[in-house]
Formats: sequence, structure tokens, C-alpha cells
Amino acid sequence: MVEWLSVGSAPVFNGCCALLCLEMVALAFVTPLLRVKRNVWLNEEDARRYAGTVADVEHRDVARVIRVHRNQLENFVPFFALGLLWIASGTSSRVGAALFVAFTLARSAHLLFYLSRMGRLRTASHTVSFIVLLILAGGVLWSAIGGPRR
Amino acid sequence: MVEWLSVGSAPVFNGCCALLCLEMVALAFVTPLLRVKRNVWLNEEDARRYAGTVADVEHRDVARVIRVHRNQLENFVPFFALGLLWIASGTSSRVGAALFVAFTLARSAHLLFYLSRMGRLRTASHTVSFIVLLILAGGVLWSAIGGPRR
Amino acid sequence: MVEWLSVGSAPVFNGCCALLCLEMVALAFVTPLLRVKRNVWLNEEDARRYAGTVADVEHRDVARVIRVHRNQLENFVPFFALGLLWIASGTSSRVGAALFVAFTLARSAHLLFYLSRMGRLRTASHTVSFIVLLILAGGVLWSAIGGPRR
Repeated sequence: MVEWLSVGSAPVFNGCCALLCLEMVALAFVTPLLRVKRNVWLNEEDARRYAGTVADVEHRDVARVIRVHRNQLENFVPFFALGLLWIASGTSSRVGAALFVAFTLARSAHLLFYLSRMGRLRTASHTVSFIVLLILAGGVLWSAIGGPRR
Repeated sequence: MVEWLSVGSAPVFNGCCALLCLEMVALAFVTPLLRVKRNVWLNEEDARRYAGTVADVEHRDVARVIRVHRNQLENFVPFFALGLLWIASGTSSRVGAALFVAFTLARSAHLLFYLSRMGRLRTASHTVSFIVLLILAGGVLWSAIGGPRR
Repeated sequence: MVEWLSVGSAPVFNGCCALLCLEMVALAFVTPLLRVKRNVWLNEEDARRYAGTVADVEHRDVARVIRVHRNQLENFVPFFALGLLWIASGTSSRVGAALFVAFTLARSAHLLFYLSRMGRLRTASHTVSFIVLLILAGGVLWSAIGGPRR
């Protein structure tokens, strides 16, 4: 077995990442379906294929899904990087597992709130994931400097 | 040597990731060159520098390259995360290697089909990479729950 | 301790990643604040909440921060992937550490130059990070093929 997988928080991290990736993959799947429905296209070859309209800006509904997707992606990237380095640098496994679960719940909630146009709850869930990223970054930075080991 | 590199699929994964990253870096290199050619800019300081036009939306040709880039990025991120965790959690090395190669071929084809405006083939290659991501996510989730080890 | 963390360049890499992630998280924090100030919204529920304007394209100032963010993200992803695989495949630790620091400095400079609208310096710093990514990709590819070990 891989060394850092023996750390207790690793399977939790793996499960969280798999779920978050599935959510992103699902969003990438929904986008073209919605584009077919709205029939507004940025690529001329698609507009021709579906006898739709060419535009320079996505249809509003499609643009929303793309924003959600971008938001998930730009939060998942630091989460994955920092989470992996948190585990690899042997920072607290229990705190790690709790943070990973909190992030995944907050992000999944954010996704639902964004799609169902609930602005305040969207902001609240975003704040939770934001704080988790700050803690993760702090922990990784701290252990890189050599803090917790001395 | 690193533990998880002794797993047979790791060098394959590394090579695939390096290639996919080079493709993304190449796209990031092409975008400003094309912007100079079309001379439409979103940043006023660039428009001044090249005596071009300021706009709120990218020139259509530039926007296409940016979409390709975004598409590569939003597919590479889950691929890298899930591929790494697939290897780290010791899931089948042979299946892994096959999936990594299939994904890389599908994504490289997608890139070419997108730039050469071939809509149907683009969709087909996207579907292949989509299925690979689903399998990778399933494998990582399964091994996180503890499935294959019991 | 994790195997690949004993490689000398790993703490440098961890610190660099943590800093770059913090920069991205800060950009994600600034964007909504600036949106509140400009009061132009893409989501109708937000426009209603703040009694602002709905638009299909972001306010120019907000769009700039989003472009910076996107640029940081699309450079961080290959950096993180290639840096991790560089360390994991046991490629030179000293060269690695130097490259990681160079990338982080170049990217942080790029961020500042972009926000302060200094086009030429922005391009220069982008070029540095671009070259680092090429070297990292070359090293990972080389070691995946088996070059340095034979």
C-alpha cells in the first residue's frame, strides 16, 4: 500500500475528491444538453448541425451552469492540491478528515444553491469552503516551514 | 524511488499528464499570438500597446481557443486527481494504464477536432474521455469505501 | 513521514503551492466584493438582493479580476501536476526547488502586474512561468520514458 494512504484521512480525502469530480463531470454533461435545448451556440459548426443561432455570449441559462462549473473547478483545484499536501506532510489526520468532509458538503450545497438561484445560502456555503481552504493552506505552509515538527 | 511509482501504471500516467500539460501550455501560448493578429483586446493597456480595439467580448477566433483551453483544463483536473488517487489506492494497474492512454488520446483528438471545427468527431472524443472519468471516479470511490480490499 | 517528502525539494514545493493557492483564494474573495461595488450582476437573484443591474457580461473591472484568476488557475494546474510528478519520479531535487521558486515568483509578479495594468511586465513574468512549465514537462516526460535512470 502507498505510504500516505496509511494515514487515516486519506480514504476520506479520496472519497471526497471522487464525489467532487463526479459533480464536475455531471456539470460538464449537463451543459451541452442545455445548449441543445436553448439552441444558442458559440461554435458555428454546432449552430449548423442543430439549425440554431450563433452568438458571442452563451444563453443565460447555459452561462449559469458554466459559472457553477468554473466555480467548482476553481475551488476544487486548491482543495485537491492543499489536501494532498496536507496528507503528504503528515499534518493532523483527524482535523484533515473533518476539513475534507466540511469542504465537500459545503461545495455540494453551493452547487445546489447556485442552480436553484438561492443567493444567500450560496454565499454562506461558499464562505464555509473558503475558510476550509484558508486552514488547509495555513497547515501546509506551516508544515513546509517546519513548524509542527520542531 | 517513490512507492506508488513502482506500480506499473505510474510511468504511463506521468507521460500522459506531461503530454496533456504540454497541450494546455501550447494553447496558452497560441492565445496571445492570435490576439495580436486579430488585434481585439479586453485589457486597455494591451489595446494601447498594439494600437488595437478594446472590447468586452473576445474576438470569435480567440474565444474558440479559450474555450478549447477551458475544456482541456476542466477535463484534466478531474483526470489528474482521480488518476493519482487511482494509483495511490492501488486499484488495478493494467486497467489504469489503459484508461490513462485512452483519455489522453481522446483529449488530444478533441483538441484537434475542436480547432478544426469538426463538431461530431469532437462530441465523440469528448464522450470517450467522459466515460474514462466516470470509471476512474467509480474506482477511486469503490476503493475509498474499502471495496476491492475485502 | 511520506516517502517523497524526504526528497529535498518537496517542502519547497509545498510552500510554493500553499502560497499560489492563497493567492487564488484571495482573488476568489475579491471578485464578489468588487461586484458589490460595481453592482452589475450576472445572476438575477444577486441583482435583486443588491438592487443592482443584470447584465450578460461582467463589469470590466470584475472581468479583469476573473481573467487574472483564470490565468492563475490555468497555470497552477500544470504546475501542480508536473511539480508533483517531477518530485515523485525522483528527478533532480535542486533543479526542482529552483524551478518551483522561479515559478512562484513569476506568477506572483504576474498577478500584481495584471492588476496594476502593466502590460509589458505582465508578459515578461508570464514568459518566465511558461518556460518553467516547459522544463518541468520535459523532465517528467523524460523520466517517464526512462531516460535519466538508464
